[in-house]
Amino acid sequence: MDGLEQMFQPPYYAVIFSSVRTPGDNRYSEMASRMVELASEQPGFLGVDSAREDIGITVSYWRDLDSIKRWKSHLEHQEAQRLGTERWYSSYTIRIAKVEREYRFGD
Amino acid sequence: MDGLEQMFQPPYYAVIFSSVRTPGDNRYSEMASRMVELASEQPGFLGVDSAREDIGITVSYWRDLDSIKRWKSHLEHQEAQRLGTERWYSSYTIRIAKVEREYRFGD
Repeated sequence: MDGLEQMFQPPYYAVIFSSVRTPGDNRYSEMASRMVELASEQPGFLGVDSAREDIGITVSYWRDLDSIKRWKSHLEHQEAQRLGTERWYSSYTIRIAKVEREYRFGD
Repeated sequence: MDGLEQMFQPPYYAVIFSSVRTPGDNRYSEMASRMVELASEQPGFLGVDSAREDIGITVSYWRDLDSIKRWKSHLEHQEAQRLGTERWYSSYTIRIAKVEREYRFGD
């Protein structure tokens, strides 16, 4: 079982990506793994947590808004965003939020 | 398939609750449904999205920090929090974040 992302030092930013998928994989899994790999190489990336059931929720954590902006405009990510609206998602919501506090229980 | 929570008017707050469950249900599902029902009756509650795979992510949305504070100290919720650390979760992280912007694609 995967653990949770570690704690970071607030303030920092969270990108809350909630989505509903279209039927079938259509190379979605491959893209999703690649985007996590690529995001984690970007300056300002802190971590990411993800789960999918009826809907998917991916929360990525970033040092600041500039890091998020750069990631949004990354060429390979832009191609994934284009395919996302064309092929993989029937709907999604993206929320940009400033993490002010955090608490942890357990290991 | 469930849809996504609607959009709200920033600024508002998100409580990002990421967790790893202990094995077995131990009446967890019953409590989880009850907490969603109860939360949705609280002043300042806007909505909630949830998914569980290896980890669980529940993001609840609130009008302001006071609404979150009141919900945290709600008696029945406090009992659930106590059982959570005793019984249901091996670890969790709670992040309080101010939603500054949001975007939507699809229906």
